[in-house]
Amino acid sequence: MNRRSTVERAIDLSADCGESFGSYKTGNDDALLPLLTSAHIACGFHASDPMVMDRTVRMCKELGLGIGAHPGFRDLVGFGRRVIEMTREEVEHDVVYQIGALNAFCKRHGVTLGHVKPHGALYNTAAVNAEVAAGIAQGIASLEMDLIVVCQPGTAMDKRAREHGLRVAREGFMDRKYNPDGTLASRRIPGTVYDDPKVAAEQAMRMVTESKVRAMDGTDVPLEVETVCVHSDTPRSVEFARELRKLLDAGGVRYRKLTELVPAVRPR
Amino acid sequence: MNRRSTVERAIDLSADCGESFGSYKTGNDDALLPLLTSAHIACGFHASDPMVMDRTVRMCKELGLGIGAHPGFRDLVGFGRRVIEMTREEVEHDVVYQIGALNAFCKRHGVTLGHVKPHGALYNTAAVNAEVAAGIAQGIASLEMDLIVVCQPGTAMDKRAREHGLRVAREGFMDRKYNPDGTLASRRIPGTVYDDPKVAAEQAMRMVTESKVRAMDGTDVPLEVETVCVHSDTPRSVEFARELRKLLDAGGVRYRKLTELVPAVRPR
Amino acid sequence: MNRRSTVERAIDLSADCGESFGSYKTGNDDALLPLLTSAHIACGFHASDPMVMDRTVRMCKELGLGIGAHPGFRDLVGFGRRVIEMTREEVEHDVVYQIGALNAFCKRHGVTLGHVKPHGALYNTAAVNAEVAAGIAQGIASLEMDLIVVCQPGTAMDKRAREHGLRVAREGFMDRKYNPDGTLASRRIPGTVYDDPKVAAEQAMRMVTESKVRAMDGTDVPLEVETVCVHSDTPRSVEFARELRKLLDAGGVRYRKLTELVPAVRPR
Amino acid sequence: MNRRSTVERAIDLSADCGESFGSYKTGNDDALLPLLTSAHIACGFHASDPMVMDRTVRMCKELGLGIGAHPGFRDLVGFGRRVIEMTREEVEHDVVYQIGALNAFCKRHGVTLGHVKPHGALYNTAAVNAEVAAGIAQGIASLEMDLIVVCQPGTAMDKRAREHGLRVAREGFMDRKYNPDGTLASRRIPGTVYDDPKVAAEQAMRMVTESKVRAMDGTDVPLEVETVCVHSDTPRSVEFARELRKLLDAGGVRYRKLTELVPAVRPR
Repeated sequence: MNRRSTVERAIDLSADCGESFGSYKTGNDDALLPLLTSAHIACGFHASDPMVMDRTVRMCKELGLGIGAHPGFRDLVGFGRRVIEMTREEVEHDVVYQIGALNAFCKRHGVTLGHVKPHGALYNTAAVNAEVAAGIAQGIASLEMDLIVVCQPGTAMDKRAREHGLRVAREGFMDRKYNPDGTLASRRIPGTVYDDPKVAAEQAMRMVTESKVRAMDGTDVPLEVETVCVHSDTPRSVEFARELRKLLDAGGVRYRKLTELVPAVRPR
Repeated sequence: MNRRSTVERAIDLSADCGESFGSYKTGNDDALLPLLTSAHIACGFHASDPMVMDRTVRMCKELGLGIGAHPGFRDLVGFGRRVIEMTREEVEHDVVYQIGALNAFCKRHGVTLGHVKPHGALYNTAAVNAEVAAGIAQGIASLEMDLIVVCQPGTAMDKRAREHGLRVAREGFMDRKYNPDGTLASRRIPGTVYDDPKVAAEQAMRMVTESKVRAMDGTDVPLEVETVCVHSDTPRSVEFARELRKLLDAGGVRYRKLTELVPAVRPR
Repeated sequence: MNRRSTVERAIDLSADCGESFGSYKTGNDDALLPLLTSAHIACGFHASDPMVMDRTVRMCKELGLGIGAHPGFRDLVGFGRRVIEMTREEVEHDVVYQIGALNAFCKRHGVTLGHVKPHGALYNTAAVNAEVAAGIAQGIASLEMDLIVVCQPGTAMDKRAREHGLRVAREGFMDRKYNPDGTLASRRIPGTVYDDPKVAAEQAMRMVTESKVRAMDGTDVPLEVETVCVHSDTPRSVEFARELRKLLDAGGVRYRKLTELVPAVRPR
Repeated sequence: MNRRSTVERAIDLSADCGESFGSYKTGNDDALLPLLTSAHIACGFHASDPMVMDRTVRMCKELGLGIGAHPGFRDLVGFGRRVIEMTREEVEHDVVYQIGALNAFCKRHGVTLGHVKPHGALYNTAAVNAEVAAGIAQGIASLEMDLIVVCQPGTAMDKRAREHGLRVAREGFMDRKYNPDGTLASRRIPGTVYDDPKVAAEQAMRMVTESKVRAMDGTDVPLEVETVCVHSDTPRSVEFARELRKLLDAGGVRYRKLTELVPAVRPR
């Protein structure tokens, strides 16, 4: 088990980034990345291109961030947010391809790729579809056993990753409401995405310090996470990150990259 | 200098391969690859996809072939045969991306990526355009100094690769006529592409054993090569390869992969 | 109702075509198209490109075939055979775009676009998903009410098309087994795709002359169709078409294009 | 000749628009389009997608703008700003495809496609390359002889369009310096792109009222135009358009769409 000492009280702050494409700019990497400890960098399938990937890896290196690959469905026009029905093998090879491409930019900048977080619809599908999750896990495991898989605790992705002997980082969301079973409440239900950075920061703070989250029905749900995701696709992402850091700082919580937080699974 | 002992009389036989895409099949890899020592594998920009790349790397591994990346312009509909006006930086990063993607498939199959050969219009442009050649060389050098660049001798690519300290494998073409200056005669001139496997095999045999080629004007041009390219996009490619191997076998020429033929440039 | 007089005994023979892409060739249009009365031409999303579309429309014109647009999911690597989760609006606009593009080639060759048949996974999804079917119907209806929608009888696509006031051509498959409810048996069940052209031809012949098909369980299912689909993605497609024509000829069945078989829905 | 009466003093104001793609937003259509009389709408090759095209056509219709197709090279990552070496036939068919796709959205909104303006590198290449210009002209002429081609006066595009019997609208640029021969000065020369909306507006005003432009060397060059292009890819585009309208209003110049300004070439 990836059990982190509660005494330690350390957390990784992460976000999707490097999602511009050609002359199309998106996100707010310049302002947001300095507030994080890890970054999930798009790999050219749902977003990004080789120029953007190089620039983003360099920026993450300069900021000392943990670097992760953020593979997605091959669907630029849908920004990887639409499920594509793929076989396990197709998922596996698409993931290998994207990780390999990003890894080349890491290599040339002398940094190590530390983790992998599937993007958008691939992330969501992997949470519930064992075949897709297995494809991702197998792709990663075939490349490098030390790579950490970022996913929601208790999902198909979580299980498959552990079955393949991979390190897992459990992710929590600061700005989303949770169901009583620990899954995320659907965005379609009004009020399930927080507008208020303070409310979001408090939810995240509780995950970090108490390993709990208040669910939709008012009950407390246990939720242990190694990383808190700051949504980067909202203009107010910086505000959310700042608010959370205020609480974390006040609470004496330390910032640690995923590679430092998640123990190696295998003896070396 | 990459000078190979003439006593040794060894040659690499290579071809572009892995150029199918999704349900579109092309080439004749099953029959052609067993006749070669090295393969240039498409990387998904001008041709190929992650499933094809995985299959092709596995096949090359089983056959013991030297494996090279075959990056091209991002132009699937044009099969990488149309020049795209790109900056040096764009070329550099596109090449890094493609090499990285292919390298992931090499890694998971436990084989080492040995060389890089630009494809089609990128190959031709790099032969004459110093900026494009520099972009390619820089991209490769930023990743791995041991990678061998496959190009025509005396071209901009050849020069830039050496300037960057990269190993170079000089390539000769068995089925194309040469100009008196050692460059290839344009395909548009009738009769510059050989139909007859025997004629082609004899031209290649002379390159290998005498380091010479008969030019369009009847004169002999010096041409030293480490690899002979067998065009894979003709249905008769297998016939050409077989004819050449007959001559090479008869002449006692040995088959060696590029990594064995091209000396390391730098002291290790 | 699109009820065709049984006295008339006429049928449309159709197939997907124009599915090559760039230098990638697929299908057997030269040999197959002369045996048909209608063609479904790919529009560049799942297959084809502007050069192929122009050539295919010209060929269909020369052969006097009825011309239809064959829009698909935007998924070249998957050949449109993988479902992409799209909103009704996305489907609608993607279909409009593709029909418009093909229509331009019809216009320049002086022929009229007569029908629309969704491709692959879009066809299958539209059969069962009312939202996707509505998107397709709405897209077509917004362009031209005379366009005929080709689909399986009784499906969501059939219903939605009629609701939108569109003409419908019911399609039967010669080489696939049917379930007792008139739907196609899954390809995954062994034996549900016929290998024998004679068996396939007999099934089609019965649809045409008796409006019935023998289902998996041996019972007869009513099935009235205006067009019989000949699968073009098998090397033996020509053989299947020839076998069917033999029976049709012997039975005195006439060949008619969809536009002649399917009555206009609205008064003009 | 497309000679417009100087007494009339009317001009078309136009800009590229509809260049967003999926979740990527670009341009400032909401604010800029109301200041124009014509719009060049991207067609999905260099930018845009079916959803964006539909929305943009609808917006142009509501504003009463003249609608033009804005076809470009198939190069999304390069935003159509990089030359792709294409044959005349390839250019022709790519243009037909894109016009057809946009025309479908015009049709469903009940508006008429009035003109075609090639985008970016295709526009620039067509100005100097007779083959590319011929491909464009031929593509347009094969579809609809009434379509107006927007280009710089005196270019290869201008000549080829007229040779094909097409209507031509001559375009002037408000924010770019001109060479003494009437061509645009290269963007790479510092100071050739105006920062000051007033300076730009005055240049355009002179084109419209005096049919002259002050060239780099201080001499006056004759320049007769039917449309003035407002660059939409700068955040200050609205300011430039407003400044120009101030001058035009003060000078009593009327705003007319291209279809009203450019006489029909052929007798009807």
